[in-house]
Amino acid sequence: MSYLDEFLEFLAIPSVSTLPENKKDIEHAAKWLAERMKKAGVEDVRIIQTAGHPTIYGMVRAESSDAPTILLYGHYDVQPPDPLEGWLSPPFEPEIRDGKIYARGASDDKGGVFGAVVAIETMLKNGPSPLNIKFFFEGEEETGSPNALQTLKTHKELFAADVTLSVDGGGFSPESPSVGTGTKGICGVEIEVSGPATDLHSGQAGQVVNNPLNALAEIIASMKHPDGKIAVEGFYDSVIPLTPEEREAFKSVPITDEDLKRAHGVIDLYGESDYTAIERAFARPTLDVNGMWGGFQGAGTKTVIPSKAFCKITCRLVLDQEPKRICELIEEHVKRHTPKGVTAKVTAYPMGVKAYLIPLDHPAIKAQLKVLREVYAKEPVIVRSGGTLPVARMFLDTLDSHLIAFGAGGPGNGVHAPNEFLRLEEFERFQKTLPLMFQELARALAK
Amino acid sequence: MSYLDEFLEFLAIPSVSTLPENKKDIEHAAKWLAERMKKAGVEDVRIIQTAGHPTIYGMVRAESSDAPTILLYGHYDVQPPDPLEGWLSPPFEPEIRDGKIYARGASDDKGGVFGAVVAIETMLKNGPSPLNIKFFFEGEEETGSPNALQTLKTHKELFAADVTLSVDGGGFSPESPSVGTGTKGICGVEIEVSGPATDLHSGQAGQVVNNPLNALAEIIASMKHPDGKIAVEGFYDSVIPLTPEEREAFKSVPITDEDLKRAHGVIDLYGESDYTAIERAFARPTLDVNGMWGGFQGAGTKTVIPSKAFCKITCRLVLDQEPKRICELIEEHVKRHTPKGVTAKVTAYPMGVKAYLIPLDHPAIKAQLKVLREVYAKEPVIVRSGGTLPVARMFLDTLDSHLIAFGAGGPGNGVHAPNEFLRLEEFERFQKTLPLMFQELARALAK
Repeated sequence: MSYLDEFLEFLAIPSVSTLPENKKDIEHAAKWLAERMKKAGVEDVRIIQTAGHPTIYGMVRAESSDAPTILLYGHYDVQPPDPLEGWLSPPFEPEIRDGKIYARGASDDKGGVFGAVVAIETMLKNGPSPLNIKFFFEGEEETGSPNALQTLKTHKELFAADVTLSVDGGGFSPESPSVGTGTKGICGVEIEVSGPATDLHSGQAGQVVNNPLNALAEIIASMKHPDGKIAVEGFYDSVIPLTPEEREAFKSVPITDEDLKRAHGVIDLYGESDYTAIERAFARPTLDVNGMWGGFQGAGTKTVIPSKAFCKITCRLVLDQEPKRICELIEEHVKRHTPKGVTAKVTAYPMGVKAYLIPLDHPAIKAQLKVLREVYAKEPVIVRSGGTLPVARMFLDTLDSHLIAFGAGGPGNGVHAPNEFLRLEEFERFQKTLPLMFQELARALAK
Repeated sequence: MSYLDEFLEFLAIPSVSTLPENKKDIEHAAKWLAERMKKAGVEDVRIIQTAGHPTIYGMVRAESSDAPTILLYGHYDVQPPDPLEGWLSPPFEPEIRDGKIYARGASDDKGGVFGAVVAIETMLKNGPSPLNIKFFFEGEEETGSPNALQTLKTHKELFAADVTLSVDGGGFSPESPSVGTGTKGICGVEIEVSGPATDLHSGQAGQVVNNPLNALAEIIASMKHPDGKIAVEGFYDSVIPLTPEEREAFKSVPITDEDLKRAHGVIDLYGESDYTAIERAFARPTLDVNGMWGGFQGAGTKTVIPSKAFCKITCRLVLDQEPKRICELIEEHVKRHTPKGVTAKVTAYPMGVKAYLIPLDHPAIKAQLKVLREVYAKEPVIVRSGGTLPVARMFLDTLDSHLIAFGAGGPGNGVHAPNEFLRLEEFERFQKTLPLMFQELARALAK
């Protein structure tokens, strides 16, 4: 079986971590990956059970006993595939079209995980590893890595490393190399608005009772100013302001507003008017409704005032926002803005993660810049991610190990959306570049 | 088979008119009812096809050739049963508990339709009818009777009558008799908000593109003032103000705000602060979101900015609001209030109906008052309905026939909600009272 066939087999496992019905698939994916690591020459492979989905450990030893150690981070779980009707080929029936592998998880992050294993297998066939490589492949990234911290704390010695190299979160674009220096944090809540005890006839109860759907809309609308600035009181209080140097650096990112409009397929950009789009994307906190529902959603009409209305909200956070505190502020805001005649219950999701930043003069960053310069023959762009890598913060806090990221697929690859893909070309370059990165990191981190 | 067993059989047919998948059930219900009418002694029973679901005609002739003619109106279609999880027994498996028949349509309006047929059957066994009774039993009431007008126009002579007696829409409460003198009109729209071309990762696109869910919430919130007054510009322009006499009359309705709170199971009433709850329920227009959806609705979280968001809105109208004009006003309002970065499409539902009022000194109203006074030994309350009877207006406009309403079940019977029921006691009283009504109408309308 070719490594590509193997990859398609891996992609076909619907390892959706957020849905309870996919628990067996997650276990299947973990076992599949552990076996593949063993086959590649990884030693001491272990499937470490957690309160949620398991984490896979393994070890590749360097020849030299004083070689530095890196921890390879990635995840084998994937986002749910909804909306299903948006996919041209089924999300868990991988298909190669026009040089792209289409499947849920192709870029995020099975490409990174599987690509790394194959790259290491090839490297080991040609000689020993220049550094010790440990593995931390988890199954809960898409649910905010709720058990990673406990796993790291319990197995602190096992995972100890000088630097973490994440194969999740990819390049900046297929053409331009990039080095990520920060990720946003995240927190989220679900809001349940309750009105009448049962669904009511809108003719009998309209203008007599408040409608939970209208009320929820009012609550959500109260959370933002017209320009997109978040109106939740205290939301920005702990945000460390961008320095003039940072704002200047962001100007060199070669992305125009027109690029962003085209990339996202929108008629206009949106967000705080006193920041550029790049500043907002890299370094400003967000508040988005990810799902909202209530009442009748079928064809035609049903003249009902529903008993309840719901929404899911997540915020992307920047330093020094505390996830728990932001959820509390949202709850207080909802309390203050709940319209007459309904009640609102706010439940925080167990997904709080702080933002993460690595100093620009860290040796691992310098090593990464050097390799990318060589591979691409181009100066890499220094960026931050608007996404969240919950474990970045955990590795720093528990192992004192900073994290750099070098993934297989770029952010334009339909990640978290229908028709997620990974270019074959990206996949191959990733496998070629990773061993060079190991070499350079071995030098940069040498004791 | 007892008439009660027959009724349960009728209720078991899921004749949901709004869902295309129930088309066969609608046809089944129409045939079932037509056969039952024939069995009861109704002559010339016809299933009249329309562009949608069929209407059933029939005729019971009075002995005297100059007897007046009434047109009995009712509907054999029902609301969708959602939310299914709210039902204690399945909506189309009728169950009798504590003297109540539980099933979708028990009160609205299969109880009225079937009860009338059984009452007429009994009456005819004891002698001839005091007036001519024509039937107009339709299958599209719950979708706004889109084809009733055309049916009436095409068969104007067939349906010609002095007065229409609707067996839809019931008493005021199980204890108090009531006479309804008006119903609200209705119109509705669906709003589709479009943002990015595909669903996006909230970390990549938050604060860069607008979120259709947040945007939809803002659009909906803009439609009402905090006290519930509707903020759609021009919405109240054609509303005929309530007269001091009308407001005075509404004061005699024996329902307190506490009664309404209890009946609807809410912590507080809601609506325009310059009108009482009864005034709002009887005679003020409404705007309610009946359904709203978009993004991820499963368990857990999915950090997505969805491409689209949707809602369904209906308004209950009063005289002299024009349904089409109100939809236009909503469309114009949405245009003015669509936030940056998204587009909004407003589609009017084909359900526009004007409000209806019958003069208090109409002979049919007087006849109804007299019968109810006798049966209940109580002064009936004069009320209006916040609901809509699309055909009331049509019978007036095409046949010049005013409509009075006397139904089997009351508005507290879970109509349009889970666990809809009809009290056995209400059902029997309805069948007993209807022939008395025929007698009195025959006198009142005598030429």
